[in-house]
Amino acid sequence: MGKKGLVEVYSGNGKGKTSASIGIAIRAKAHNLKVCYIYFHKDPEKYGNGEIKILKEIGIDVFGFAKKHPFCNKNVKLEKIRNECLKGLEFLKNIYEKNIYDVIILDEILISLRDGFLKEEEIMEIIEKKPEKVELILTGRGVTEKIIEKADLVSEIRNIKHPYDRGIKAREGFEY
Amino acid sequence: MGKKGLVEVYSGNGKGKTSASIGIAIRAKAHNLKVCYIYFHKDPEKYGNGEIKILKEIGIDVFGFAKKHPFCNKNVKLEKIRNECLKGLEFLKNIYEKNIYDVIILDEILISLRDGFLKEEEIMEIIEKKPEKVELILTGRGVTEKIIEKADLVSEIRNIKHPYDRGIKAREGFEY
Repeated sequence: MGKKGLVEVYSGNGKGKTSASIGIAIRAKAHNLKVCYIYFHKDPEKYGNGEIKILKEIGIDVFGFAKKHPFCNKNVKLEKIRNECLKGLEFLKNIYEKNIYDVIILDEILISLRDGFLKEEEIMEIIEKKPEKVELILTGRGVTEKIIEKADLVSEIRNIKHPYDRGIKAREGFEY
Repeated sequence: MGKKGLVEVYSGNGKGKTSASIGIAIRAKAHNLKVCYIYFHKDPEKYGNGEIKILKEIGIDVFGFAKKHPFCNKNVKLEKIRNECLKGLEFLKNIYEKNIYDVIILDEILISLRDGFLKEEEIMEIIEKKPEKVELILTGRGVTEKIIEKADLVSEIRNIKHPYDRGIKAREGFEY
């Protein structure tokens, strides 16, 4: 691998963003890279027995922030969510300094931006300040032009057809 | 999970199709579903030490067909590739009959279609004949209208920006 890590973004309204980020984690780990997987807005009660369990089992460090989202938990306060997102960014800056990871994945962090919990300049800062060697992966709907411009790789995952459109609900083992 | 498996397609010219299929395999496996991962047109000399290794290690059955592709191996005969793709379909029909898997992933099979090794009706047949409980995942550029119509979920992974465009070559641990 080259010494300079890139910034990869997976956005768009289709299924596959988080799945892709898991695949990226697995591939990097297979090549003995040190991977840190940080997820936002996901309740471990729902997700903890899925991909997160396997990622941990194979030796990937996994952390979660802002685990409740108002979409799923109506009585969680918006200011509390912003504070938890900011804690996630603080944690990230901390591991930037320690310089232990080759790959850092920020799953659904662009949802924090889209829903107003984080500001665009806060996302730009974590992109700009990443250690040179780190491959940084951001996922979630809500990518902005400014982030696209700064990123090295951007894939838009477009929904062409989804079972939700036919009223089929999220299924354990598939959608979560 | 519901008893009826769906047909999911990940196509488009952007990065993330195979990564998404790995993520889907990992999530399903985490929920104790039986997963079979079948890849087409990938040389295990290049890919065998990556994601394939970890998928096998965590107990997912992995098989490869038509492992050489003329894009990477100039002196492989086209007829030979078609025959190997057909062997893959035969294998698939065989495991359909045995009815052992909940999830079957056909990674890059749409490349077989795009590049003329398989015919559209052959792909349609494996979709139509899948056992009801099986979740069938197809990836690769080259999805057709007919396949989209038949599938339950289609995500198009569009390339917005890719380091290849700047002349950066595929990197071990990231692109393979």
